[in-house]
Amino acid sequence: MSPDTAQLKRHQVLFLNRKSDLSLQVQLAAQLKGMIQSGQLGTGDPLPSSRELAAELKVSRNTVVYAYERLISEGYLSSRLRSRIYVSDTAPELRSAAQRRSSQQDIAPAVHVPRASYSAGPKPFRPCQPDVQRFPLALWNRLRGRALRTTNRSLLHYNSEAVLGFRPLRENLAMYLRDSRGVACEWWQIAITTGSQQALYLLAHLLLKPGDTVYMENPGYSGAVRAWKSAGASIEHLPIDQHGMVFPPLETSPVSLVYVTPSRQFPTGASLSLARRLSLANGAVSAQTWIVEDDYDSEFRYIAPPLPSMQSLDSGNRVIYVGTFSKLLFPSLRLGYAVLPKALVEPFTDLKTVAEDHGPMIDQATLAAFLDSGAFYSHIRRCRKNYAERQQVFLDAIQKGSLPLEFRYRDGGMNLTGFLPDTYDDLAWSARLKRAGLDVPALSQYAAGPTERGLVFGFTAFTPAQIRRGVDKLLGLKLDRPIPSSGSLRVAASGSLLAP
Amino acid sequence: MSPDTAQLKRHQVLFLNRKSDLSLQVQLAAQLKGMIQSGQLGTGDPLPSSRELAAELKVSRNTVVYAYERLISEGYLSSRLRSRIYVSDTAPELRSAAQRRSSQQDIAPAVHVPRASYSAGPKPFRPCQPDVQRFPLALWNRLRGRALRTTNRSLLHYNSEAVLGFRPLRENLAMYLRDSRGVACEWWQIAITTGSQQALYLLAHLLLKPGDTVYMENPGYSGAVRAWKSAGASIEHLPIDQHGMVFPPLETSPVSLVYVTPSRQFPTGASLSLARRLSLANGAVSAQTWIVEDDYDSEFRYIAPPLPSMQSLDSGNRVIYVGTFSKLLFPSLRLGYAVLPKALVEPFTDLKTVAEDHGPMIDQATLAAFLDSGAFYSHIRRCRKNYAERQQVFLDAIQKGSLPLEFRYRDGGMNLTGFLPDTYDDLAWSARLKRAGLDVPALSQYAAGPTERGLVFGFTAFTPAQIRRGVDKLLGLKLDRPIPSSGSLRVAASGSLLAP
Repeated sequence: MSPDTAQLKRHQVLFLNRKSDLSLQVQLAAQLKGMIQSGQLGTGDPLPSSRELAAELKVSRNTVVYAYERLISEGYLSSRLRSRIYVSDTAPELRSAAQRRSSQQDIAPAVHVPRASYSAGPKPFRPCQPDVQRFPLALWNRLRGRALRTTNRSLLHYNSEAVLGFRPLRENLAMYLRDSRGVACEWWQIAITTGSQQALYLLAHLLLKPGDTVYMENPGYSGAVRAWKSAGASIEHLPIDQHGMVFPPLETSPVSLVYVTPSRQFPTGASLSLARRLSLANGAVSAQTWIVEDDYDSEFRYIAPPLPSMQSLDSGNRVIYVGTFSKLLFPSLRLGYAVLPKALVEPFTDLKTVAEDHGPMIDQATLAAFLDSGAFYSHIRRCRKNYAERQQVFLDAIQKGSLPLEFRYRDGGMNLTGFLPDTYDDLAWSARLKRAGLDVPALSQYAAGPTERGLVFGFTAFTPAQIRRGVDKLLGLKLDRPIPSSGSLRVAASGSLLAP
Repeated sequence: MSPDTAQLKRHQVLFLNRKSDLSLQVQLAAQLKGMIQSGQLGTGDPLPSSRELAAELKVSRNTVVYAYERLISEGYLSSRLRSRIYVSDTAPELRSAAQRRSSQQDIAPAVHVPRASYSAGPKPFRPCQPDVQRFPLALWNRLRGRALRTTNRSLLHYNSEAVLGFRPLRENLAMYLRDSRGVACEWWQIAITTGSQQALYLLAHLLLKPGDTVYMENPGYSGAVRAWKSAGASIEHLPIDQHGMVFPPLETSPVSLVYVTPSRQFPTGASLSLARRLSLANGAVSAQTWIVEDDYDSEFRYIAPPLPSMQSLDSGNRVIYVGTFSKLLFPSLRLGYAVLPKALVEPFTDLKTVAEDHGPMIDQATLAAFLDSGAFYSHIRRCRKNYAERQQVFLDAIQKGSLPLEFRYRDGGMNLTGFLPDTYDDLAWSARLKRAGLDVPALSQYAAGPTERGLVFGFTAFTPAQIRRGVDKLLGLKLDRPIPSSGSLRVAASGSLLAP
């Protein structure tokens, strides 16, 4: 034992807990810092070499090296000559700053770092969740590695050309949208965003001014409600029937923007009829109204191909097409997009430059390669097949019960809405399911004012066995009696994060 | 050769160009689609098996499988029985949609996908750029892989708790900021953002209303100017001297927010004196003014440790501390943060929920592990040593010339500002350097109204050899004569992306 190690040992403060959530080097650095702050180690005191201390504490030498480097970096230690470590002469200032801080603010000591808060994943039957276990993560990681290797770190640079996204991703996405959804666009009309939510927010601030009116579907997507309201707009909630949103002629409506989910209305699942699509598209041109088309899960059609997108019917550059990869790949990827009419490309670029500049590049380059390789198409096709099976498993299971749920729209999507007769209180049902561990929002949660009642079931994130167990639990709850509807709970949807 | 292959060959349209930018499966899919759209292949026509076609075209079987899957996914082909592929009966609809589209909109054919637009990296002496070649990318990738493996894909889920960021990252960052910068905070006061720019934008929309006044340094950071203006604020540009920003007493100023870069004023490099820090912090409390402290590169101090952060001197929760990882690690990571006074945490969370919800999780988890492992501290320390050397190389080289550049502030940072006498036109010098391939902004580009003149040199992204070559080129330009100053070009800084 060297004299320096003896000095440390004498204080008997170095105790590394191998069962702690904290790594050994973090514990060691925190304890050494504590000794300096308390004055047990003073300016100029030498520390044992990393080799000696590692042997003494029976830890790897790197553990000590990292702890020392950390304290050198923070100014508590300094290295003189070669490899000799001392308590730095700036340590006293840091000590007094630390004391001042803790006396002023009563901050907890800086050593508690729990490793918590990983998401446990969705509970049955949370809507709009993909099955992340099916995502080809190994392939994704290989494509990411290849993108980094073949570009010699150029992906790490700031890229002033990429405010609207990494160009190869925009090109591949444009091709996909043209082919699969008939979206008429060139690559430079595409803006890559943090999920579709950022696209809605930026569009709100680009297209609306305080006092403007926005048409929304009722029930509808609460994330969009919040976006329009954040720009000071007021919302007019329009009813839904089996052909989608029911709207007055745009030509005579004082409305600036219409938000619509035509492929599958969120959350009911109704499709906007072709006649209404044409009427909306033509009315928007005459009235110079903006249409925001949120095509959040049209990739998942199980029976017939979807109707053409609103954007493909737009002859006057009034439709902004919004979509997301989060539901196709995995939610925490947070990559969405907007296809902008040509006149909006420049102002949107200016706004995005102020709002965040460009987004992270490596994920975008990986996604570009994922599209380019064809793996994206295979993944969608496998998901579609799989989700269609799960939908059937869900319907088979729930229809064994005698609940008064009517599943009207089964042709696609990630969710099924079971409509309830008006004498049932969907909010009370949803709350009862929640207590039983099931995450099934009520249609009324998405509503402003009176709408039909029902429950929204997502089935895509759960295995057939999980689906059957969840339905069994639900059917065991004896929900099949009418509950007097309170009526008083119908308030504007604003708290829900369930999202297209 | 099977009859199906013969049918394809007969048309002689399948030609795969191995030198193309396009992958083989993309070419194959595009050509097959073209044959379907042109009617050369009709509904119900069979295609050769992937094995046969692969052998015929001398490509790997996967190439054909991917191309087929893509066209099945898009509805052009369908598979009946097992493994037999036919032209789908939805193909005619797609054909007519494609025709309608191309006749309506004159869209280029969907087969051109150049692989372009990787950033070539900064030219000497672009300010504020880290050396991405020094970033420990292999270690980063290992930590990323480990984070994914040990959490069983929970990182892929949507995480409703993570609107302000991944909790372990916020915890590790809080510890780092407390220890290294004296920032008084708990983990839940930290908001992770897309670079510091998103933090500034969200703060602008949270704290300012149209007509409010903001104090900025002149010259100053144009990204911040744009953020405040986007919320309708008007800017009052305050002068800089050797002790930093010169400001009137806040108690008698009608100002809502003060934006300041106290550690090293951007772009001059002056430090805000302790007396002014205290005056600003105390004045903000009395006058209920917000202070946004942008501490964009204080990690890089080469001589003495930096003064305490403004936030650590704030007794009244008026200072918001903003920082970024983009300059420490690599710019395209796009991770920044704001440390919020407790009263702002909830409203900031609400705003971020609307503006984009949470950001991508995997990078945040990787960064949390990078901090936790100690590798972050080692990286900063190595960069600091390395950048200090580069600064010296730059100064030694440029001082061999006889340019009238005065480098006043050399104690830290990623940039050096060379001040020029008032008889020199820094904009003209910068333009001349740009023509010679050097990226050296003029101080006047960051200015609104008259300021000192000078040139801003970044030295951190360039090797000593690159620095010497760049300086040689500069000295060869014979810039050492006064150019009559035009004066007329001093306009508000708004176009520059050079950023703290």
